[in-house]
Amino acid sequence: MPALVITSRDNPRYKTLRKLVQDANSYRSLQRVWVEGDHLCDAALSRGWQPQELILAESNAEGLTRYAAHAQRAVLLPDRLFAELSALPSSRGVGMVFALPAAQGVDPDAPTVVLDRLQDAGNVGSILRSASAFGFRQVLAIKGTAALWAPKVVRAGMGAHFALALHELADEGLVQQLRVPLLATSSHQGDFVHARAWPWPCAWLMGHEGQGVSPALMAQAQAFARIAQPGGEESLNVAAAAAICLHASAVARTGD
Amino acid sequence: MPALVITSRDNPRYKTLRKLVQDANSYRSLQRVWVEGDHLCDAALSRGWQPQELILAESNAEGLTRYAAHAQRAVLLPDRLFAELSALPSSRGVGMVFALPAAQGVDPDAPTVVLDRLQDAGNVGSILRSASAFGFRQVLAIKGTAALWAPKVVRAGMGAHFALALHELADEGLVQQLRVPLLATSSHQGDFVHARAWPWPCAWLMGHEGQGVSPALMAQAQAFARIAQPGGEESLNVAAAAAICLHASAVARTGD
Repeated sequence: MPALVITSRDNPRYKTLRKLVQDANSYRSLQRVWVEGDHLCDAALSRGWQPQELILAESNAEGLTRYAAHAQRAVLLPDRLFAELSALPSSRGVGMVFALPAAQGVDPDAPTVVLDRLQDAGNVGSILRSASAFGFRQVLAIKGTAALWAPKVVRAGMGAHFALALHELADEGLVQQLRVPLLATSSHQGDFVHARAWPWPCAWLMGHEGQGVSPALMAQAQAFARIAQPGGEESLNVAAAAAICLHASAVARTGD
Repeated sequence: MPALVITSRDNPRYKTLRKLVQDANSYRSLQRVWVEGDHLCDAALSRGWQPQELILAESNAEGLTRYAAHAQRAVLLPDRLFAELSALPSSRGVGMVFALPAAQGVDPDAPTVVLDRLQDAGNVGSILRSASAFGFRQVLAIKGTAALWAPKVVRAGMGAHFALALHELADEGLVQQLRVPLLATSSHQGDFVHARAWPWPCAWLMGHEGQGVSPALMAQAQAFARIAQPGGEESLNVAAAAAICLHASAVARTGD
């Protein structure tokens, strides 16, 4: 495999790579995504993703053996340049660059999670991870949601990105294309999430950390779920609420 | 109320305050905790906490009216000094300094969450929030867990800190003091968490993001819960797993 050795941080290719790793939204203009560390790289490969480039720290000889066959090209960096690039203090010096998947049409019948302007990268990644674990196949992120392929979200997703069909910059019209029932959480209406079976497949609507789901989207919801909070405080992190809803809906479902 | 105006960032009191806000572990040596923003300040006051100091940006005249009666002393900062201090870009310029609660004995009968060396501040804060919402009263954080009163954890906790008895730097001996049954998640043993009632009160054991719960603590667990993950990937964020377990245990409990 052709291997390119870059030794200067002024190398244009290195500068582009640094932008891709460190600028959360740059993947949209560059049309490439950055994936770092053995776990995430393996997750992508196991789902059949083909990296454009394998990026290795020079000291990571094992990485070259392990991954070279999968990539079209390898780029070797002195350890200090890889470290400057990396977002992971404990990285063993391996990353991959993939083409950003092309936008596809929404599957109106797929189990889906709709993210309405969620802000926190950790929350978004955690919800993607829960979605994948509980058998959801598709995510619609309404415009204003944290960039799904930002490296921080990819890390928090722990591989879920490669198992899900992701649709970004969605609007209400895209949500209306769903034929599966749209479910939302509510503090004051609907059944308790643990107390009934939920339709499957379905779509769960999860909203902004402060403002919740927008009124326009709430108006589209066909059923509401309440999360019993016997501690007396009506307050849950949105990724915690999502985990409870997605789990409940996946294990106590009708329509299978 | 006496109000102190600080105008220089070299003021020793300001420098101590900045350390308290920006150094995640400094509350331990300073024996004080920083709480910022209306929501968190109100949460503390509503639980009967008395601030030592009210810290206000000069332009926040409403804050002085609203909070002055609660604090022993007010400190006014020029807006630029408050902004330099603050961790919240959208803060309206209010914070409070409280005495760090004195360590108390473990309540062996309280519904409890045990955190075994969790690293991520967002995860720890989210679990505290879930614990409070689902009626847990006590948290034991094993030595190596992210500092519970670090400002980032306090923010993610959204007020839960003021409703819970928090024990830091715990060891296995402290966990052994619990008389409530100790429950742990497992990928290969025990009942599915949604499929049975769980003893109440109880203690849930949540482990390190990468390594999970230590073998020594796992050996103390009296029952195990599995989280069904029909998506085929055995992978959940620890705060998502905690939300599912704490919720399930709070809503489908025996022994009330």
